Amino acid sequence: MRAEELIRKKRDAGTHTRDEILFLVEQYTRDSLPDYQMAAWLMAVFFRGMAPTETADLTDAMMRSGQVLDLSDIPGAKVDKHSTGGVGDKVSLVIAPVVAAAGVRVPMISGRALGHSGGTLDKLESIPGFNVNLTLREFRKALAEVGCALIGQTKEIAPADKKLYALRDLTGTIESVPLITASILSKKLAEGIDALVLDVKVGSGAFMKDLQSARRLAQSMREIGARMGKRVVALLTQMEQPLGFAVGNSLEVAEALATLRGQGPEDLRELCRELSAWMLVLGGAAPELPAGRERFDEMIRSGKAAEKFGQIIARQGGDAGVIDDPGRLPRARLRRDFPSPGGGYVQRMETERIGWAAMLLGAGRTRLEDRVDPAVGLMLHKKLGDPVQPGEPLVTLHYNDEARLADSLARLEGAFTLGPARPAPAPLIFETLP
Amino acid sequence: MRAEELIRKKRDAGTHTRDEILFLVEQYTRDSLPDYQMAAWLMAVFFRGMAPTETADLTDAMMRSGQVLDLSDIPGAKVDKHSTGGVGDKVSLVIAPVVAAAGVRVPMISGRALGHSGGTLDKLESIPGFNVNLTLREFRKALAEVGCALIGQTKEIAPADKKLYALRDLTGTIESVPLITASILSKKLAEGIDALVLDVKVGSGAFMKDLQSARRLAQSMREIGARMGKRVVALLTQMEQPLGFAVGNSLEVAEALATLRGQGPEDLRELCRELSAWMLVLGGAAPELPAGRERFDEMIRSGKAAEKFGQIIARQGGDAGVIDDPGRLPRARLRRDFPSPGGGYVQRMETERIGWAAMLLGAGRTRLEDRVDPAVGLMLHKKLGDPVQPGEPLVTLHYNDEARLADSLARLEGAFTLGPARPAPAPLIFETLP
Repeated sequence: MRAEELIRKKRDAGTHTRDEILFLVEQYTRDSLPDYQMAAWLMAVFFRGMAPTETADLTDAMMRSGQVLDLSDIPGAKVDKHSTGGVGDKVSLVIAPVVAAAGVRVPMISGRALGHSGGTLDKLESIPGFNVNLTLREFRKALAEVGCALIGQTKEIAPADKKLYALRDLTGTIESVPLITASILSKKLAEGIDALVLDVKVGSGAFMKDLQSARRLAQSMREIGARMGKRVVALLTQMEQPLGFAVGNSLEVAEALATLRGQGPEDLRELCRELSAWMLVLGGAAPELPAGRERFDEMIRSGKAAEKFGQIIARQGGDAGVIDDPGRLPRARLRRDFPSPGGGYVQRMETERIGWAAMLLGAGRTRLEDRVDPAVGLMLHKKLGDPVQPGEPLVTLHYNDEARLADSLARLEGAFTLGPARPAPAPLIFETLP
Repeated sequence: MRAEELIRKKRDAGTHTRDEILFLVEQYTRDSLPDYQMAAWLMAVFFRGMAPTETADLTDAMMRSGQVLDLSDIPGAKVDKHSTGGVGDKVSLVIAPVVAAAGVRVPMISGRALGHSGGTLDKLESIPGFNVNLTLREFRKALAEVGCALIGQTKEIAPADKKLYALRDLTGTIESVPLITASILSKKLAEGIDALVLDVKVGSGAFMKDLQSARRLAQSMREIGARMGKRVVALLTQMEQPLGFAVGNSLEVAEALATLRGQGPEDLRELCRELSAWMLVLGGAAPELPAGRERFDEMIRSGKAAEKFGQIIARQGGDAGVIDDPGRLPRARLRRDFPSPGGGYVQRMETERIGWAAMLLGAGRTRLEDRVDPAVGLMLHKKLGDPVQPGEPLVTLHYNDEARLADSLARLEGAFTLGPARPAPAPLIFETLP
């Protein structure tokens, strides 16, 4: 088999065999296929797409490029959630303990912040002592004993995805539904899960700007999941504004802790409740969705979810004292309000700009090597539809480095559109593909 | 400027500015832009095409990546011919001396055999002593004194094309009209020519299998040539069978020499006559095409073309004695006939297979590093439409290495389709785009 011929085949709208896909992934993972041939193939895939058989074969080959966890000796269903990424998305910190407390195991391998979007690992690491770098053996043990473990991608899990993603990032081939599908599913299935709840974000703060492309991704994920014997339920959810009010690592942890205590912002709670309910249904801990929602409320009300998060934190070396005293989380030295230039109702947010503003304070990274400051970030004071007086603060910036302030403020300029009319509220959950 | 952004721009059907094209070509030529980003961009160009302004800018940037010859101090027009490549195409060996003998200077930088297709340089090198590696200074001097020089691409001429072509070859991005246009024209315009005659081959032995794609390339070459101030005349010519009877380097030189003596196969002579006539018109040595054809006949009849070839050979260190005694050309030790499996009329030839059969005897190369045997090749005994008796030889193989014979014969199997009806003769020249 020759790589040139496979590139030409995809270029000319051919359908690859399983062996051809395997050849490409295996050769590339072991550095026998050069980056330039893979880049040409990826761009051909961008234009020609992939048949479901091809996407499934690609997912399978990428999954098998590393270790595939077999969690079948741990009793009960294992269910994970994946989000396509947004601003202020601290959902995992809430639902992982809720679902684990309700008896479904959550083996969660998460990512880091990149660009305007945050990452669960960075949020967890703002909890003093929290270690996201468990070995796979420790991961499995924590999962069996605590019911949930939250770690980062290890070298053993889907190394092909790591290499391919870095190349796609540099070659304009990120935005391809089959490639996104294979990237997400190969990692998630290698975790040994039985089912997956997918949160596809749509809107000004999301990777997918419109419902149609979000729906295409959701359908692809469900179809490929089914072909690989795993149920995938997808929710298309709104990302026209940050989720909750906090954007930045320790600020988001504090907001997630409030939500676990039954407080916290309404949109965050509602989304966590819906995603948890689906995870509980898929994991067999609730017969149907309304019962799942009740289980969520019960885990919050009883304090079991907060208690479970304390166990998870303690198990991974963190300071579980933050549960009762969020003041133990790192705090920025400096604060500054960003006042509203005018009055009216908040009609639109350029959510990606808000994400960049937090990133520029040090809450995220432009490159994977960059260091994150756990304490910095933004606290919003308004949501879409809220009335604002001129000069009233829209955002409070939490920062440690005066030199970073100007860039961040520049991003916030123009991030909020105010107007005389109160906009119709947008639904938080657009669609569910069960 | 960032390469990722330019890849995305082309991917999303954008039109590059002159600066963007220059950035890509300059950075790539100096190894500052990695192969994988260029490969992704090339594949995006394959799918999205290029506007004429972009193709002209690309041609210009590639041309200026190296030295651009200024031949204006050499009096008279300089005209070159380029063929898109076929089997048995020894046209350059005939027309370069004819046109030079008629007073138009021919600065010809040619390529080597690759795949099923031969190369002028390898043919010239089968003449004992012939040196195709002149420096650009020697090239210019020979052109001024002899009226024609025939050399290979030097490092100084369009280095961007050399690097890009090698990458395109490995990434399935050869077949793109704007990329082919820029590749050919950047080299040819760097030679310092005033006009170009383009021979676009169409058919079973050609790169372009149908008239439509050949026409697209011809039109693109003319348009971009015009934008760069050079006239390009394109002929779409038939390549449904080898040109003449000889395929292989010294065999083809002998056939070209016969043509220069007024003998030689009819199709070869006719095509050479037409291409020469156009070169003479563009070079101002003939007022119009019929006069150009007469000048061709005159140069042959008078012996001036053969004499000019002798001068060219002598000037480049070769044995000019081959003009009068083609027996001085290298000859293969062994011969073997390939008999016809049946009888009838020759209805079709798989010309590419015939090219491969010669290549496999050692007449060509699969990779640019391969060595060529100047003596080996094929002599056809039949043209399309000729009657054949069962067992009558269709081809005689000239070879030196018994071990190579089987592969070559295997390619000839099925290369000829015989049938009871005599096929209608196909025109040699389909169209001229003046």
